[in-house]
Amino acid sequence: MEVKLLSHTPEPERVVATAARLCYAPQAAEEVWTGFTPETQWEFINKLVDYGHLSPFEHVAFTFAITGVSRALSHQLVRHRIASYSQRSQRYVDEAAFPVVVPPTVAAEPAAREEFMRVINQIRDGYNRLTALGIPKEDARYLLPNACQTQLIMTMNARSLQHFFGLRCCRRAQWEIRELAWRIRREVIKVAPLLFRETGPACLVQGRCSEGAMTCGRPFTREDVDQEH
Amino acid sequence: MEVKLLSHTPEPERVVATAARLCYAPQAAEEVWTGFTPETQWEFINKLVDYGHLSPFEHVAFTFAITGVSRALSHQLVRHRIASYSQRSQRYVDEAAFPVVVPPTVAAEPAAREEFMRVINQIRDGYNRLTALGIPKEDARYLLPNACQTQLIMTMNARSLQHFFGLRCCRRAQWEIRELAWRIRREVIKVAPLLFRETGPACLVQGRCSEGAMTCGRPFTREDVDQEH
Amino acid sequence: MEVKLLSHTPEPERVVATAARLCYAPQAAEEVWTGFTPETQWEFINKLVDYGHLSPFEHVAFTFAITGVSRALSHQLVRHRIASYSQRSQRYVDEAAFPVVVPPTVAAEPAAREEFMRVINQIRDGYNRLTALGIPKEDARYLLPNACQTQLIMTMNARSLQHFFGLRCCRRAQWEIRELAWRIRREVIKVAPLLFRETGPACLVQGRCSEGAMTCGRPFTREDVDQEH
Amino acid sequence: MEVKLLSHTPEPERVVATAARLCYAPQAAEEVWTGFTPETQWEFINKLVDYGHLSPFEHVAFTFAITGVSRALSHQLVRHRIASYSQRSQRYVDEAAFPVVVPPTVAAEPAAREEFMRVINQIRDGYNRLTALGIPKEDARYLLPNACQTQLIMTMNARSLQHFFGLRCCRRAQWEIRELAWRIRREVIKVAPLLFRETGPACLVQGRCSEGAMTCGRPFTREDVDQEH
Repeated sequence: MEVKLLSHTPEPERVVATAARLCYAPQAAEEVWTGFTPETQWEFINKLVDYGHLSPFEHVAFTFAITGVSRALSHQLVRHRIASYSQRSQRYVDEAAFPVVVPPTVAAEPAAREEFMRVINQIRDGYNRLTALGIPKEDARYLLPNACQTQLIMTMNARSLQHFFGLRCCRRAQWEIRELAWRIRREVIKVAPLLFRETGPACLVQGRCSEGAMTCGRPFTREDVDQEH
Repeated sequence: MEVKLLSHTPEPERVVATAARLCYAPQAAEEVWTGFTPETQWEFINKLVDYGHLSPFEHVAFTFAITGVSRALSHQLVRHRIASYSQRSQRYVDEAAFPVVVPPTVAAEPAAREEFMRVINQIRDGYNRLTALGIPKEDARYLLPNACQTQLIMTMNARSLQHFFGLRCCRRAQWEIRELAWRIRREVIKVAPLLFRETGPACLVQGRCSEGAMTCGRPFTREDVDQEH
Repeated sequence: MEVKLLSHTPEPERVVATAARLCYAPQAAEEVWTGFTPETQWEFINKLVDYGHLSPFEHVAFTFAITGVSRALSHQLVRHRIASYSQRSQRYVDEAAFPVVVPPTVAAEPAAREEFMRVINQIRDGYNRLTALGIPKEDARYLLPNACQTQLIMTMNARSLQHFFGLRCCRRAQWEIRELAWRIRREVIKVAPLLFRETGPACLVQGRCSEGAMTCGRPFTREDVDQEH
Repeated sequence: MEVKLLSHTPEPERVVATAARLCYAPQAAEEVWTGFTPETQWEFINKLVDYGHLSPFEHVAFTFAITGVSRALSHQLVRHRIASYSQRSQRYVDEAAFPVVVPPTVAAEPAAREEFMRVINQIRDGYNRLTALGIPKEDARYLLPNACQTQLIMTMNARSLQHFFGLRCCRRAQWEIRELAWRIRREVIKVAPLLFRETGPACLVQGRCSEGAMTCGRPFTREDVDQEH
């Protein structure tokens, strides 16, 4: 898996602070925009987080190239509807030698890994025999497994990212999308620390588990985050 | 593939007509609601379609149980974001004997069909061996193919359905989602003919192809629709 | 203000329970749909709320006629983007004798009320003089006040309604939209008690205030809700 | 009215072209991203527009400060739901000396203009008398007219902007939001000409009017756009 931040709204913290302040300020937008210092930005964004006033976070967007992930992951990922996706098409791209994602539980167990790769090879052979028989790629791909690697360009705004982290950084989230969530979080913290410092799984951010009876029972602490991610 | 209309907003045509008329009417909502006859409804909805005033169509929603479709289809389907989905989870449901969707091009060609089913059986064996080795279902499923059947509950409003038909009833749409689109269209026409009579692929509805240089070159006529669907 | 539930997805609790169960059930959708008893529905929906699994609530929609509310309210209301609205147009409808919403603080104070109504009458006269001078309605309406009554048809699904109640049933919400939120809540509880019993302001539902330093300091209890609403 | 482009996704055309190409390309995202020349970008984006493949346009967002517009405009504007807004609040900001937008038909007719300003002054006096009587700003504002100026920060992606222009650049759109649409279009064309050159009202872009029987009868030509806007 590789996550690369391709592009993002410049000066994201200033944009969010300006949008938030505009709601309550008698000044003109222009003055609000030019009037912030790093200190007043910091203070203002902290207040927003404290008040749960999340809509100003929508004004900044982050665009990622996500590669080396499985179609199992991408099928889950695109369920996040407040985001934009462009994904490699299995209808049009030839998958004769498709690379795969191997789950850690499989990789850790030699017998399982061998079995897994044996089936993957059988699928590759099958796919290639079907296309050799004249079956169109878009139909031969019905054999392709969830493990098949895909790549996407994804754009998500900061509010939607906060929500995404709340659900997918959780220890109960599926391992691959959880890894993606933490990686994305690391990328956005580099360029907008104020906006994302306080983000993470619901147990950390809201102080309460959202998984009910299926809780993992190990709520994240700030130290866990610093050590593990 | 099976498409069953589980539930929908009652009196959908009256709801749409009321919403539309309310925008321009001096009367109270209550009066507009009770004031329609079937004839005035008909007339009013025809005007809406003519004016391209589509937002009133959002007020009625249709809920379907969709079964016997592939994960190739469902991955495309859930990209339609103005809709709600609940889908069988491969993390939690055992797929030891998963049924599959066989593409028509494969089914039509004995050598291809044999090859296809051979690989499907290898995948089933592999999945079962992995779970027997203690690999969790949520990881063993990385072997499962796009052909694996899934089921969903989907809710979409009439405006989003019109858009869906515009894209997916097109002859250039992938065959499985195209079949789904036409089946859904048949279901909703039964209960709300006024709202859906004029829907279909862009070539039919807007009189122009939206596929540019990739056009199929055979724009739908009203007769094609009546005969083929 | 009048709120009338015009229409809604029939058997809303069964639809939500079916959608939720389908995700984890080996049975076909049809069986899940027909297999619920009122008791198992109750149990299942309670689990959903406990797990914070909210997406199944999207499958049921509620359509309201809302009349006798101000344009101050409607401007706030339409900011809830996961919903559909059809609103009386001031461009097309003549507002020569527009009725108004009088805020309770104004109504309670004779001097304020008199002043308020005096200005409203001046506005009415101005609007009528402008149209008499040949100014189009769509421009004369630039004089019309926030207090001017409007009417809307609004459709919102149960998940979006839960979110709406979380924000707008709050004691810190603006009085008119707060009244609307509680009225809508009463209407939906009548037809879908299981889905909405546990809804309300964040302090009640999530056990924590979302207003930060602007908290009212009086978190709702279940008894407050029963007595006040 | 003033429209200032505060911020936008850097290199918007490269982002769109990369997202689009990724769907069909065998290369890795990184290579696609670095592989474009201005010429291949141009070619690729033209193809997208030709094919009606609009989703890649969602990956770039534009953030505007919009000032000196009326609340009549903002109430319409926020109905565009695929966008983010932060707007000056009349609950919190004192409007003792609110500036107004005067419709051109009113400004052009001395008797109308005099009448209009007379009523505006009566409203200002009324607002101030109410607050002097102890009425909270959030209730005194029920007197404030649609003409009252407001300011917003708005973020919209390029696909949503294209849709916005399609509806609001139309000669039948309300004059103030039409002026806003053309001004926004001028701003984005400066920074992303490839993405927006071909945008505009439906008559120009799709070659057909979307207003049905309410058509203005004067479809835009490319020359009209160049001369008028």
